[in-house]
Amino acid sequence: MASPSLLTPPPVPVELYVTNREKLLNSFRQHLADSARPLEGIVLLQGGDERTRYDTDHLELFRQESYFAYLFGVIEPGFYGAIDIASGKSFLFAPKLPPDYAVWSGEIKPLSYFKEKYDVSMAYYTDEIAAVLHKQYQELEKPLLFLLHGLNTDSNNFAVPANFEGIDTFETDMNTLHPILTECRVLKSELELALIQFANDISSEAHVQVMRNIKVGMKEYQLESLFLHHTYMYGGCRHCSYTCICATGDNSAVLHYGHAAAPNDRTLEDGDMALFDMGAEYQFYGSDITCSFPVNGKFTSDQSLIYNAVLKAHDAVISVMKPGINWVEMHKLAEKTILESLTEGSVLVGDVKDMMAEHLGAVFMPHGLGHFLGIDTHDPGGYLQGLERPEEPGLNALRTVRDLKEGMVITVEPGCYFIDALLDPALENSKTSKFFNVEAVNRFRGFGGVRIESDLLVTANGCRNMTNCPRETWEIEAVMAGSPWPIVKKSVAAR
Amino acid sequence: MASPSLLTPPPVPVELYVTNREKLLNSFRQHLADSARPLEGIVLLQGGDERTRYDTDHLELFRQESYFAYLFGVIEPGFYGAIDIASGKSFLFAPKLPPDYAVWSGEIKPLSYFKEKYDVSMAYYTDEIAAVLHKQYQELEKPLLFLLHGLNTDSNNFAVPANFEGIDTFETDMNTLHPILTECRVLKSELELALIQFANDISSEAHVQVMRNIKVGMKEYQLESLFLHHTYMYGGCRHCSYTCICATGDNSAVLHYGHAAAPNDRTLEDGDMALFDMGAEYQFYGSDITCSFPVNGKFTSDQSLIYNAVLKAHDAVISVMKPGINWVEMHKLAEKTILESLTEGSVLVGDVKDMMAEHLGAVFMPHGLGHFLGIDTHDPGGYLQGLERPEEPGLNALRTVRDLKEGMVITVEPGCYFIDALLDPALENSKTSKFFNVEAVNRFRGFGGVRIESDLLVTANGCRNMTNCPRETWEIEAVMAGSPWPIVKKSVAAR
Ligand SMILES: [Mn+2]
Ligand SMILES: [Mn+2]
Repeated sequence: MASPSLLTPPPVPVELYVTNREKLLNSFRQHLADSARPLEGIVLLQGGDERTRYDTDHLELFRQESYFAYLFGVIEPGFYGAIDIASGKSFLFAPKLPPDYAVWSGEIKPLSYFKEKYDVSMAYYTDEIAAVLHKQYQELEKPLLFLLHGLNTDSNNFAVPANFEGIDTFETDMNTLHPILTECRVLKSELELALIQFANDISSEAHVQVMRNIKVGMKEYQLESLFLHHTYMYGGCRHCSYTCICATGDNSAVLHYGHAAAPNDRTLEDGDMALFDMGAEYQFYGSDITCSFPVNGKFTSDQSLIYNAVLKAHDAVISVMKPGINWVEMHKLAEKTILESLTEGSVLVGDVKDMMAEHLGAVFMPHGLGHFLGIDTHDPGGYLQGLERPEEPGLNALRTVRDLKEGMVITVEPGCYFIDALLDPALENSKTSKFFNVEAVNRFRGFGGVRIESDLLVTANGCRNMTNCPRETWEIEAVMAGSPWPIVKKSVAAR
Repeated sequence: MASPSLLTPPPVPVELYVTNREKLLNSFRQHLADSARPLEGIVLLQGGDERTRYDTDHLELFRQESYFAYLFGVIEPGFYGAIDIASGKSFLFAPKLPPDYAVWSGEIKPLSYFKEKYDVSMAYYTDEIAAVLHKQYQELEKPLLFLLHGLNTDSNNFAVPANFEGIDTFETDMNTLHPILTECRVLKSELELALIQFANDISSEAHVQVMRNIKVGMKEYQLESLFLHHTYMYGGCRHCSYTCICATGDNSAVLHYGHAAAPNDRTLEDGDMALFDMGAEYQFYGSDITCSFPVNGKFTSDQSLIYNAVLKAHDAVISVMKPGINWVEMHKLAEKTILESLTEGSVLVGDVKDMMAEHLGAVFMPHGLGHFLGIDTHDPGGYLQGLERPEEPGLNALRTVRDLKEGMVITVEPGCYFIDALLDPALENSKTSKFFNVEAVNRFRGFGGVRIESDLLVTANGCRNMTNCPRETWEIEAVMAGSPWPIVKKSVAAR
């Protein structure tokens, strides 16, 4: 049997992290110069630690903290990393491992191994941090450390600043680093893009595998298993960007289905729509892709109506995205496009402008249009300091309200869902009830929802879709019936 | 194509948890009666909470805390559970979810849903804990709570006792519950055994799949992926009991290979031994299985020598295990059997009794012979209060030193490894150097190691092997060459 994959995991050049550090250094020096501060001090980050499951010795599979991964690429737990602003030198501090590590966990690597592997200026042990950092600024009694502290606007949690024995012998600055480093992460380098592209390639291919193998009677988690296997077996992706959402039937109206309390355990039925939101992570860099399609491989007219409403919004946004375009406008464009289609399809009645004024879009798409993507699925930086979260329904769920810039990677993921908890209040509200064709809406209760999600790179003049899944209904039906993907086009004009 | 599995995930009867609670209640009342204490007070446990990855909104897939899982079987995060000693009534306390949970995470279930699903006497919300528990003992100013606090002897961590608003209005007892509940977990019920058996069945089958599909040139993690896929796709096992150890070549001498810093990423070479320690978890209950075999499907004479030394130890232990047998004796039996084989194979020279006196066994098998298995891979209870950990090399790594009892599930996992960090000191030590055939030992440097691990249930008169993998070298070679498993025996005598 031919391999079900055409892909091979690419090597990850250490230059990626060197470049990331240089970018931070340049931004940081620029910032200090702009604020007339001296070009000195040390950026210090603490990497993640291994964790056990509760009080047991069951070790959770370690995944590096994302800011630390961005600057150093270190896959091992227990490290610290530093960058000296004045000299540009980079430092890694490795944990001293007990001798029996060699028996239980593998060879104890010398410092030179880490220095070379991660291409830093110097490597030391973590119990040397204070001494080594003091040595960089011997003339100062209390050298200045820039620590990572700031709000993650998706979780509302704060980054935890580095801590180590002797930190009280330093001055610390908790405010400068976080926004600068976050903004570095927002604009991706070519080396970063190559990894995000591979994560997209293997995940797109895995989505196609899932489409080809889905059958009525299967359990939702069996499709999750197929996806995970394809991306690990052929893509070397040990982690996913997030827990797979394998929703069928009315589960597809639950935006974050698939978690432990709703564990992808429904049996697929004939006539179901499937909404599969699954993305692999390759060497820290993620993908985030949603495909929606009928489980039995053939769209009904109702399924086509909703699906094409969402696809039209997806395509409309992508067709106008470019630097300078504001994301709030893109969200509104998606809402408007979906409302227009629902009106054409007689699910809604009235003037779409009036519907927009009443925020009817948020009844069908209660989530934001998309989010930055990178080392985190919801990559940070959506709200630059000073930007406020909008208060209007729908817009208040936006993970960013920024203008697009070249180098951003952002998901475009419009959706249209039939959620009783949102429909019922809208049907009861005199300002919105008039827009509904009640009979049609009731026909769609239990339908679930449709989401189409691609990962877009903003380019100098427009954008590039990094995701490559069947999107048109005829493409989906052909691929599910066994056609190769990408479909070999003969006289058919390119979409 | 025929399904690669003959298995179907069995339903999990809620009686399992009801039985577990009854067992605790009986033990607890007995203990109180024995200590002339009143038969009253309330056992209170706090279930696990969902965790995010560092400061982000990336949710780790939730897995319930094991003691809580044992008593209540609750898959949802954020719960508390209680059992009233006097009345025997059981209580669950569910978190109150915000209204938008319905949009993002799914239907908000009423309390009656949890009461029925987990078959408890009453269900309330977590903000009612203090009021509800006070009501059970209205005559007391400060009713007594038995909280879970005690040492996990594998991790050296302590269980974290429940905490809630208003706990200061109760008396608390931190010492009584942990040893009693832990001992309940040590002896498995029939309902628990059925789940451990299924976890073993699907994992044994997956190990065979791996043997059949392994090829020189593959990456170790591709075999991990095959295992994970088989156990999830056909067994519904979303979690593994532990991170897969897919070690080939000299990695097989690293006991806990496969973690993030040694991520199963070596390329398989002709002539390698593979040591794959992988076990699925089914509905909280685990399995823990190791198979060792040549990557190319044919044992060399050196590989057979080491493999059969370990297999003989594995079989020798299993042949004498029964209630009353002490586990330290089993460990010594395994050591002795391996040393005898190495002597017969001219790797060692001299009297095995003398080798045992010098603890030579621990040079080749630095880990303990096995451990309890259940809801945790290293299930608790290995050291009853009062039992001390031995100090001798090898024995000091034992996770239990207890006498066997009917109903215990324990792994038998002898191993023989060639680890420079252990061989070199033994070769330099005048008390042990004389036992080595230095030339032979040097021949095995880089060989790695062999481990054979099965999960054994101690029965009334002996034990039952719950694991069913090819073990004899001829069985392994036949299965790797394509024979069905179990092998259909014609005139061949059963092993
Ligand atoms: Mn997304
Ligand atoms: Mn084990």
